[in-house]
Amino acid sequence: MGGDHAPAVIIDGAIAAVKEYENTEVVLVGDEPRIKSLLLRAKYTGDKISTYHASEVIEMSESPANSVRKKRDSSIVVGLNLVKDGLGEAFFSAGNTGAVVCAATLSLRMLPGIERPGIGIITPTLKGIAMIIDVGANIDPKPMQLMQYGIMADAYMRYILSVTDPQVGLLSIGEEEGKGTEFVKETYELFEKSKLNFIGNVEGKDLFSGKCDIIVCDGFVGNVALKVSESLAEAMQVFLKRHIMSNPLGILGALLLKASFSRFKKQLDYSEYGGAPLLGVDGVVIIGHGRSNAKAIKNAIRVSREEVERKFNEKITEAVKA
Amino acid sequence: MGGDHAPAVIIDGAIAAVKEYENTEVVLVGDEPRIKSLLLRAKYTGDKISTYHASEVIEMSESPANSVRKKRDSSIVVGLNLVKDGLGEAFFSAGNTGAVVCAATLSLRMLPGIERPGIGIITPTLKGIAMIIDVGANIDPKPMQLMQYGIMADAYMRYILSVTDPQVGLLSIGEEEGKGTEFVKETYELFEKSKLNFIGNVEGKDLFSGKCDIIVCDGFVGNVALKVSESLAEAMQVFLKRHIMSNPLGILGALLLKASFSRFKKQLDYSEYGGAPLLGVDGVVIIGHGRSNAKAIKNAIRVSREEVERKFNEKITEAVKA
Repeated sequence: MGGDHAPAVIIDGAIAAVKEYENTEVVLVGDEPRIKSLLLRAKYTGDKISTYHASEVIEMSESPANSVRKKRDSSIVVGLNLVKDGLGEAFFSAGNTGAVVCAATLSLRMLPGIERPGIGIITPTLKGIAMIIDVGANIDPKPMQLMQYGIMADAYMRYILSVTDPQVGLLSIGEEEGKGTEFVKETYELFEKSKLNFIGNVEGKDLFSGKCDIIVCDGFVGNVALKVSESLAEAMQVFLKRHIMSNPLGILGALLLKASFSRFKKQLDYSEYGGAPLLGVDGVVIIGHGRSNAKAIKNAIRVSREEVERKFNEKITEAVKA
Repeated sequence: MGGDHAPAVIIDGAIAAVKEYENTEVVLVGDEPRIKSLLLRAKYTGDKISTYHASEVIEMSESPANSVRKKRDSSIVVGLNLVKDGLGEAFFSAGNTGAVVCAATLSLRMLPGIERPGIGIITPTLKGIAMIIDVGANIDPKPMQLMQYGIMADAYMRYILSVTDPQVGLLSIGEEEGKGTEFVKETYELFEKSKLNFIGNVEGKDLFSGKCDIIVCDGFVGNVALKVSESLAEAMQVFLKRHIMSNPLGILGALLLKASFSRFKKQLDYSEYGGAPLLGVDGVVIIGHGRSNAKAIKNAIRVSREEVERKFNEKITEAVKA
């Protein structure tokens, strides 16, 4: 029921996923009559998709903690409880991010040795991809919690994205040790003592430079950085379009470049990477962008499958112990 | 002596400025023999540019506080002392930002009612321009200091950029009151009680949306946001170029779009706006990007002239009193 185009695109994405991925079953949690009528309209008649009724919806603008406490029969709370009770192996939502974080923490609890969950997103860089963690689950973290994010992201890059010996950077405002707030300096010391492949401080410019595979930061800074990127990418497209349309040769040039532009947009498109894993809870949880389209939903289901199949949370637990 | 292309581009920018702007004199502070030989080579023979010797240079990577304390004869310290002593009316540097902030604070002191200086940068938005303050002078500010940044930026938008009744937003991770860290919540309350045209919290996406004219944030978050923007803009150009070059029709299309691309780049070019004002010190100080070219230097001199002519710091003092 969550996201800007729910439930229709969620259903389309689920249908695409069960058709493309073997041994995949999806339980659609929410307004059952509405979901069933949309399934009928989409002409899905297979047995890989079932429904589970939840009478309430947590809206995008609602306060996470309050809504999770009050709306016990919301699709987010009900869906996560299905995973807690073993009736599902992974949970995906494109709805209220704060509510998913809050409900997942309450319902699934944390993995041993992890204090707080973190949201990791995958971003394209000049050399490939990188994970930025945390982008909003924990806006006032302790240094040790950032350390735990580093360990979890390291496991994610290794076991889900097959990156060998991922390099970890700590987001600050200068590369030298000793740059940044007291919080950053304390966190730096913890990382230096860790077994991670820690390369030191990185700067905002390194989110896209490919200098490292993992960028660790507090959820406030990470959320601002993420939203700045999204909005600048959009603004640049608008700026460029305005300039093209004001140029007599522009429209012809733009036609010739159409394929390039569309591959370019695809590279920046979050939906290629599915959703963002909520790392640290005792269960597989993927959070989708509010604007998720069917392809993003399908890819998020693929990613959640991979986390389950590769027993990803066990890897985290082992890494934290080590 | 500061910046990636100093002192040559500084000299070129100074020459362009004294030619274009009436009643403008520039004192070039630094390695006098070197500057004089470059002035000769540039064939400048007028009387609007003079030199002042400083035997030391604070390098870009040096620790601000230490270098300012030790290098008393550096171009930054000497230049700011000239302004303090009334031998100059404004100071510009494209060098070590932290050192300029530190030396300006020590030498010029703060304006009455202002506790800490803040760096404000001008960024293009979908509706025009906006100022983001602070982008790195004060990485661990108090709520009252952010309030002071709001007042100073308001004065800047009114008296330097002629924006009527500028709208002020507080950078957070959600628009609703009560979103964000405790620090953001306390700052929100101060802004709400102020006389500023406060529109509430804004998000990272609003740096380019044009939702407000001024975005206030702490210097750590502001610095990350600024560097994320710069690097994404560059990365997008590289991504787009790669896609264009891999397309047989791409090169022809790109040729037809050349004028559009160059106007597009110009719109994103910091050098159009000169440098970033260091607001709050008792004197006019403009900080340039390390990569400043001659045009950026020229524009920074224009902006510093405007601050002087419009008695900008008096406006700040009046606003703070009110």
